[in-house]
This record gives sequence, structure tokens and C-alpha cells, in this order.
Amino acid sequence: MTVIRISLGTYRATARIPAMPKLSPQSRARKIKLLLFDVDGVLTNGKLFFVPQDPHQPSGASSERTAQGQVEVKGFHAHDGVANSLARIAGLKTGLITRRSSETVALRARDLKIDHVRQGIADKGTCLKEIAKQEGLTPEEAAFVGDDIIDLPAMRAAGLAIAVKNARAEVKKESHYVTPHAGGDGALRDAVEYILRAQGKWKKVVEDYIGRSS
Amino acid sequence: MTVIRISLGTYRATARIPAMPKLSPQSRARKIKLLLFDVDGVLTNGKLFFVPQDPHQPSGASSERTAQGQVEVKGFHAHDGVANSLARIAGLKTGLITRRSSETVALRARDLKIDHVRQGIADKGTCLKEIAKQEGLTPEEAAFVGDDIIDLPAMRAAGLAIAVKNARAEVKKESHYVTPHAGGDGALRDAVEYILRAQGKWKKVVEDYIGRSS
Amino acid sequence: MTVIRISLGTYRATARIPAMPKLSPQSRARKIKLLLFDVDGVLTNGKLFFVPQDPHQPSGASSERTAQGQVEVKGFHAHDGVANSLARIAGLKTGLITRRSSETVALRARDLKIDHVRQGIADKGTCLKEIAKQEGLTPEEAAFVGDDIIDLPAMRAAGLAIAVKNARAEVKKESHYVTPHAGGDGALRDAVEYILRAQGKWKKVVEDYIGRSS
Amino acid sequence: MTVIRISLGTYRATARIPAMPKLSPQSRARKIKLLLFDVDGVLTNGKLFFVPQDPHQPSGASSERTAQGQVEVKGFHAHDGVANSLARIAGLKTGLITRRSSETVALRARDLKIDHVRQGIADKGTCLKEIAKQEGLTPEEAAFVGDDIIDLPAMRAAGLAIAVKNARAEVKKESHYVTPHAGGDGALRDAVEYILRAQGKWKKVVEDYIGRSS
Repeated sequence: MTVIRISLGTYRATARIPAMPKLSPQSRARKIKLLLFDVDGVLTNGKLFFVPQDPHQPSGASSERTAQGQVEVKGFHAHDGVANSLARIAGLKTGLITRRSSETVALRARDLKIDHVRQGIADKGTCLKEIAKQEGLTPEEAAFVGDDIIDLPAMRAAGLAIAVKNARAEVKKESHYVTPHAGGDGALRDAVEYILRAQGKWKKVVEDYIGRSS
Repeated sequence: MTVIRISLGTYRATARIPAMPKLSPQSRARKIKLLLFDVDGVLTNGKLFFVPQDPHQPSGASSERTAQGQVEVKGFHAHDGVANSLARIAGLKTGLITRRSSETVALRARDLKIDHVRQGIADKGTCLKEIAKQEGLTPEEAAFVGDDIIDLPAMRAAGLAIAVKNARAEVKKESHYVTPHAGGDGALRDAVEYILRAQGKWKKVVEDYIGRSS
Repeated sequence: MTVIRISLGTYRATARIPAMPKLSPQSRARKIKLLLFDVDGVLTNGKLFFVPQDPHQPSGASSERTAQGQVEVKGFHAHDGVANSLARIAGLKTGLITRRSSETVALRARDLKIDHVRQGIADKGTCLKEIAKQEGLTPEEAAFVGDDIIDLPAMRAAGLAIAVKNARAEVKKESHYVTPHAGGDGALRDAVEYILRAQGKWKKVVEDYIGRSS
Repeated sequence: MTVIRISLGTYRATARIPAMPKLSPQSRARKIKLLLFDVDGVLTNGKLFFVPQDPHQPSGASSERTAQGQVEVKGFHAHDGVANSLARIAGLKTGLITRRSSETVALRARDLKIDHVRQGIADKGTCLKEIAKQEGLTPEEAAFVGDDIIDLPAMRAAGLAIAVKNARAEVKKESHYVTPHAGGDGALRDAVEYILRAQGKWKKVVEDYIGRSS
């Protein structure tokens, strides 16, 4: 099931829709060269587990521990790992922007070869513009996938605003596309597929991926 | 989906409904200045994981370990973290009252800057009254969010009784409002949104929150 | 929703239904004085997590570790903890019978004050009869809650056979009652409530429980 | 609910369906003597948890730790453990083929006495053919259970292609059978049951299993 929602002009609508012909979500998706996304609720289902660790022991992973000797654990999905590979094959740049900070996310991002990793970011709108600029792109060429209100400035700045199935209602209302899978259940994969299908690259990229593996 | 249930006068109905005009859930919500809630099944989905730890090692986190060297782990949701920020912006005091005791909860509460943290409490009704008094409020100005029968005395004492979607049937029956999301999946966020919408503060608080971040 | 299924006389039906008037599930429930249950899939959702531990370190919790230095972790539900308290108030004896063996289960059982704890048991039918005998009861006075085919001998021996919502089809087919909640989500609570309601004790026991807490 | 889907001849259809009478899924299942399957998303729900460990400590489980001192944790289901026992009783060989590598999987496979364990495999199609050959079987006598596009070459090579309920759409489209349960929730059990029912062995194997336990 593919749910498509068009922003209905909420309280910031006047700032978002200038007097130009409105773009369809597909037209927006065709321009995307950079895919940015939140972590909690998007790469994960939003659940945060805190596992106490012994703070008296030496550790090489100290940055991941809180001052209280706790470690943050969260669950990623294998389908989203493949999503990153598919994006890379298609030449789509990727990046995560999250307000929290954990070593788990840093390491998962390195495993997945995510191009931009920005943790501890409250102002995601400005961060998206900076990354786009760094890549020599306009914000219209960037998509952002979010689930909560802190993601709205980045979604408003991006050319394509994607909300995950489990996003809060305010966030879905301002999105151009809602993923059929929830965060942590393949939502990023949905986002990549949506963009690559709009760009007519999907089948080729999938076959390339399978061919490289076999 | 918003499900509203009005107490149908169960076996304690006579004690709960005096000969006064019955208040609507919204009227009750408008008076709330203090939001108290249970932890297991409300801030979490009720699941308890016990991870064995080595009891022979020195530990700074000992209070969190059981006598048997086990650590209790449970999953919190990112949306409920934002709920606490929104409550704080709106001037709503918050607090948790739980019968269990774990350091995980103490630390999560500190991270979220929850105003009142009461662990190891069996008599939640009396505890709610004490916290209200401490804040210079009446119990009618307090809401309580629960999921199980041990929460009923606090829900009966509070001005607004909220049950989470996954609450046991007895608890839903005595609530004024049932959250659309389950515990651990954003139920506290639903409670905060319900109260702030009734008070006409929701949109302003959300925009303030976004503005502070960006 | 309460789903009631009556055994339809499967391939062992002739052995199970003698030429006597068939008892209704409620009649069966009224006789129960001992509630026995499986662990994985009944007290939990059936998920098993294996967390590696350092095998070179001394440990007081060694029985819980596998030969390979792994620890088994599984998730219990807070509502099932309350279920045990309610059973105890009602004078219902409880016990778990599981084929697996882990210290996590032993400790959780001790916390919940479960009367009989039998781990590493393949022949659950014989074990149920032994526990009943030890309590001076007949198997007809025992109920068994299961989710998989290894539970069938105990369910066939018991006076009341309860299957959890997530039980395999073969197991539901031979049960007298199917719980509305899944294992690990309050299924044991459903079983206790079903029995105590049939015995006319439910409301009194709930009020007693609340009264003891407050 | 049993969902049966027949491959509709996708872009590789010409390579898959020679000018021979098409076999029904049941006919395919009747020939199966070897059941191979993916791990993430099939034996599990696809969720990957990374738990930091102290890298400064000596460890006998080092192969399971990443270079960064993290341990990969994933959840298996008890019903799939029984599935392996049932397959063994029926004389069906089993094996897992996964691209990832973790000691958790190696140990779980050893516990379950899985016949073939191949981790770190990108080319699953070739691996399936090798295992079949090693067992003296043709690929038509092997089934493969998958959830993602990397599984397609193995599914295309196998005589019976099974997709789990949570498989990506491309994968379901090329399968002969879709399991009613999701990966990590008993999907492997569904696969074993489907094959043994087609072979007319199911009831006998279940009774044998119960008889051996009691």
C-alpha cells in the first residue's frame, strides 16, 4: 500500500507554497540527489533501551556511555541496510541528522557507509541546508525523512518531505509522502524505493545489486 | 483516532459521582496543572527484560541491580521524551509514580527533567494527593495516566483519569480518556497533547518547541 | 474480545472424551485450584535473545550462561506479575513447566513467588500430574496454559486447557479457552481472570488487591 | 490463513519457466529434501541490536564482536526451534545462508543442530547449489526461505521459493508460498509445516515429536 499525502497548507502554508505551480510528490522525487533522515523513529521504531554498564571499568567505547554508566541500545532493520546499498548504487548521497548522540549510531552509520553523520543537532533545517551546500546541491535536491515535530524545519526546507508510517500526525500532515512501513521496519527502504522508482532507476538498481552479490 | 470513554459507574460509582453536574473530559482537562503517570505499560509497553550481570565486580550502579545480580531493562519511546519538553514549555508539572524500583527509570526521569519521581510506591492514590499538595494544587488539578488496577486509586483521586490503549479493561472502564497510542509507543505524548489541546495551548507550544530548536 | 474454542475431537479425541456429559469450559474453570503454564510464548512472546558475556570472568550467575558464554534474555510483562498476586489472593496455586533452562526464569519466578518451578522438563504431562499430586489435587483441578505442541500432553491431562492467542493452530484446536492477549502481553493475566470470573471471585479479588496496595 | 502466491513471471520469468508444464507449489513441496533459509528477517524479525562491550577485556567470544567492541544481538523464536526438531524427525536436512556474520547465529545454529551453517555469503544462489550437491541432491529438491532481494538468486535456483510474511514486495512476487507468520515469529515453522503437509508427513511427525518428549 502506498499512501500519498499532500500538504494541505497548515499554519505555515503561506511560507511554503509560493505563487508557482504546485509540484507533485513524484516531480519532487525526480530531483532528489541527497537523502537525509532522522534516526529515532525512522531508522528505529523510536524505542530507547538503556543498559547499565559498570562505570569502574576501563572502556574504549566511553563516548557511548552516559555520565551514569548507561549504554543506549536501539534496533535497526536489515532492510534499511540494503536501502543504503541501493542508494549508493544509484548515486544518491545519504546522511543522518539526529538530536541524540550515541556511539551505536556512529558505528551503524559507518557500517552502512552513510555519507553524512550529524549527531546532537537540534536545528535540523539549517543542518540540511549546510549538507546540501557542501554537496553542491540546492535544498530542493534534498529529501528528509522524519517522524516528529523537531524534523519539521528540515522537512519544510527539503524538496521532498517524507514521513514514516509511525510519525506523529503533525508530521504526516506536512509530508509529501508517507512510507508504508514504520520506522525500524524498513521505512528508509521505502523512501529509497519511492525516489528511485520516481527516477525510473529502481529495477535496474535492484538487478545491479543482485548481480554484484552473485 | 481518538477514543473517549466516560466512566459508566462501576461498583465504586456512587463514591465517585456526587450529585453535581458531570464534567466532560475536556472540562476536566482544562483544569490540569500536574500530569502524573505510571511507568511500566505507560512509559513502556509493559515488557521487563532482566539481563544478568556479573555480581562479583565492583559497580557504581549497584542500586539498579537486584540481589541476584540482574539488571532490569525496559524500552522508552522518543516521542514521550518530546512530550515532557512540550509539557514543560506549557508550564505543566510532571511526575512518575511506580511500584517497581530501578535505576534505569531514575536516570531516564533525570534525562527528561521529570519534576516528581516516586519509585517503590504501592499506594498511588495517596502519593498523587501528596504531590498535588506539595505543588499547592488540588487533586482535581492533577491527571493520572495508568494501565493496571494498581493505578485505579490514583485515577479515581485525579481530576482527569487517562488510560493507555493497552490498559486492562477494568482500567479503561474507569478512565475519562483512552490514548490512541499504546504505552511505550507515545501514550504519554497523547496525554500531553490531549490536555494542551483542551487548554487551547497545543499549536503555540509546538511552534515554540520548534522555534527553540531552530 | 473473548474467544472460546471447544476441542473438536482431533485424532486423540476418543482418548479424551469418555462417554460422560461434556463439561463446558466454565464448568471446568470452576474446579481449578492449580494453574500451571509454559514460559516461552506464554509468559513471553516466544522471542529468545542471546547476549554474549565474557566467559573469562568469575560469575555468581554461571548456571544461566551457556557453555559458550551466552546469556539468554527474554521479556516478561508487568500484567502477568499482577496476575500472580491476584492468583495468590484467590488461593490459586501457580507453577511453571518449561523445557528450556535459564536463571532469568528462575529469578523471575522467585520474584513472582510462583509456587512450582520446573525447568528442563520435556514430559510436561507427567510433570503436571506430579505437581497436582504433590498439592493433593487431581489433574482435573489443574489448568495448563500453553502455546506449542510440546504443551499438548499437559493440556490433555489438565482439567482446563488454555491456549494463548499466539499458540500454533494445533494447540488452539485442543484448548478449551484461547486468551485474548498474546504470550508476553498479558496472556497469563487473561487465564487468571478467566478462572476467577468463572469462580465468581474476580471483583472481590481485584478490590482486595487494590485495598492491600492503598 | 494460508496465502499462496504463484510466480507471475517477472522480468526474469523467461529464464525461470521453461516450456514445461508448470508445477504447483504443492508438487514442488513434495520433492523437497533440503530446507535452506536466510537469518535476518526470516529466523528473526530483521531487527539488529548492537550492544557495546568493553573491548579492553579478554574474551573467548571475540569473533562475535565487531572491530569497535560491539556485539550484535537478535531475537529468535521458540517455535522455529521446534521447527528444526520436526524437520529432523521427518528426515529433512536444514541449513542457513546469511550475508552477515555473528557468533550469536553460529551458537543458535549449533543449539538447533542445523546441518549447514554458511555465514558471510553474498552469493546465496551458488551456495544453495553447493549445499544441494554436497547432500547429493538437485536444486529442485531444495527450498529456500527469504525476505529480501539478496535472497532472490537462491529462491530462483531452488525448487520451492518461500517468502516470509514480512518480505519485501519483490521477494513475495517471486515466491511459490508466503508464510502466514512473519520472520522471528514462527515463519520457519510455517515453512516446515507447509512442506511436511504437502508430503503427507505432518500429523505423524507431530505425534512422534510429542511421543519422544513424553
